[in-house]
Amino acid sequence: MSEWRKDPIVNRWVIISTERGKRPFDYNVTNVTMEEEKKIQGCPFCEGNEYKTPPEIIAYRKKNSTKDNPGWWIRVVPNKYPALINHGEVLKRQHGIYKSMKGIGVHEVIVESTIHGPGLDRQTEKQVAEVIWAWRNRLLDLRRDTRLKYIQIFKNDGSAAGASLDHTHSQIIAMPMVPVDVRQEIEGAIKYLNQHGTCVFCDLNKQEITDQERVVINSSYYLSFTPFASRFPFETWIVPKEHQCDFVQITKEQVKELAAVLKNSLRKILITVPNISYNVVLHTAPINLKEDIHYHWHIEILPRLTLISGFELSTGYYINPLPPEIAAKTLRETGEFS
Amino acid sequence: MSEWRKDPIVNRWVIISTERGKRPFDYNVTNVTMEEEKKIQGCPFCEGNEYKTPPEIIAYRKKNSTKDNPGWWIRVVPNKYPALINHGEVLKRQHGIYKSMKGIGVHEVIVESTIHGPGLDRQTEKQVAEVIWAWRNRLLDLRRDTRLKYIQIFKNDGSAAGASLDHTHSQIIAMPMVPVDVRQEIEGAIKYLNQHGTCVFCDLNKQEITDQERVVINSSYYLSFTPFASRFPFETWIVPKEHQCDFVQITKEQVKELAAVLKNSLRKILITVPNISYNVVLHTAPINLKEDIHYHWHIEILPRLTLISGFELSTGYYINPLPPEIAAKTLRETGEFS
Repeated sequence: MSEWRKDPIVNRWVIISTERGKRPFDYNVTNVTMEEEKKIQGCPFCEGNEYKTPPEIIAYRKKNSTKDNPGWWIRVVPNKYPALINHGEVLKRQHGIYKSMKGIGVHEVIVESTIHGPGLDRQTEKQVAEVIWAWRNRLLDLRRDTRLKYIQIFKNDGSAAGASLDHTHSQIIAMPMVPVDVRQEIEGAIKYLNQHGTCVFCDLNKQEITDQERVVINSSYYLSFTPFASRFPFETWIVPKEHQCDFVQITKEQVKELAAVLKNSLRKILITVPNISYNVVLHTAPINLKEDIHYHWHIEILPRLTLISGFELSTGYYINPLPPEIAAKTLRETGEFS
Repeated sequence: MSEWRKDPIVNRWVIISTERGKRPFDYNVTNVTMEEEKKIQGCPFCEGNEYKTPPEIIAYRKKNSTKDNPGWWIRVVPNKYPALINHGEVLKRQHGIYKSMKGIGVHEVIVESTIHGPGLDRQTEKQVAEVIWAWRNRLLDLRRDTRLKYIQIFKNDGSAAGASLDHTHSQIIAMPMVPVDVRQEIEGAIKYLNQHGTCVFCDLNKQEITDQERVVINSSYYLSFTPFASRFPFETWIVPKEHQCDFVQITKEQVKELAAVLKNSLRKILITVPNISYNVVLHTAPINLKEDIHYHWHIEILPRLTLISGFELSTGYYINPLPPEIAAKTLRETGEFS
């Protein structure tokens, strides 16, 4: 069973997905069954274990290698325990005040390396660039599905960030609506544009370059910085300097540079706090919405040192014990990587 | 240093508070210093250790006992490591596109019992009623501070819920703005009222009583149920059946019954998943806002079995592996407590 359900007060969607927790006490992590499987039979994301995942969607692999066999360096597969289901139509249901619909959507896994263990930061820049190409590839392919409105790419690294498997991977959840957090960013960007005539992300980049104190890496195409209102210690955003609303507009040269900036931003965080859990999320323009030319794609690195407590869950606000200016200084002082 | 900072894109406030993490590696829990202190010298919330906290604000105590000495059963003290500071005026600052203000607010701790250890569920109903009276007392007192707009009462129980001290306690953060999550609920309630002419929370109660399948406890004044779009496994809301916008409107008889419903809802969850971490949050009307007569106070119990991952942090949506209908059935079957 997989179902989208809407909170009748704040219109927040929730995915109720029994696939993600088959047995009564599987809920303590999102994916215990896979974790158990790994312990018993080895990691499903390691080379040679391709049969442990559903058949691959795409893979970057050596010329003579064959599908679902060794010889790949990036492999994209459907999530074995998907939160959403990839068949059927989007049909809204109403029962009294409650709205719901079938759990339509796509849930995929990108195996980011053949090397077992966590950490996109531990891959070569070339390999990180291949991961970025895989993200772009899936964004381009999935947007052809007219039922879908948004494609969310995210990465959970470490148990405190919600990862259930150690082997470095990112995930894609494509859904039939634009999620509230992205919609709020788009609305904020449009409001700012109406007031100032400029893009808020472009202005933010400019001010960060002027202020200097929150900059982590300043490269030709990207600015990596700790945002002024950071929610988490060492939270780091990577924003393209050029106005790009949609991630798929990225050029070959930019992919190469983004790989270096992403890898080194992560490396600086991991040097500062070894073994820290973190999320990486990509916010990009929704599928086929005209006002999205005012959006500006970016990557958010969200280290998970602090716990989300009752304060955050009741207010939507965050308490961060580390000023981003000190965080950026600490990250800069780990050395020059870019 | 304590500062409110506003994200320039989505207008989300963040508290940057160095008090909450004095040393560079204190961030892994919100309150390591207190934790260390506890290990070395004993729990600051235990009877006989009153000198380890700042002077008490109020306490419910035996007739002949004296302030900051044993003899209490409920004790309210300022948080020793406050996220906000309780002196000065609300002055907004602007630096380029960034808005901030002094970290004005109040951060208090309610020690809920002299018994060391977690769990409001392990207290007597009489003791839980005293906790509820203390919440009401602080709400009434703090709203006289004209700088404040909202008083958030919350409880972190267990390390996965963000608690740093075992000894059962709740917290109050009073702030100079209405937090986004409460504002969205108020706006949702007003929108619903305009469309249907009724209160969404009242209608929700009615439908839950008709549907039956998500009801946990149905008492004279309160309905305890697992919401249709539950974000977390075993998420449980307690909503007054009578329309009350403001928690302080609660009567003596209602406090007594709420104590029983809250204690027993928690007990059912703890019987089902022993030692589970959870948050309890109280959503009530903001201070002095006229449209709040359309709001409807309620308590949310948020068990923390699942981790908040990159999906939740990038979309604002949740994945819940347990349908609330199964959760409610499981909780009901733990036996009759109310």
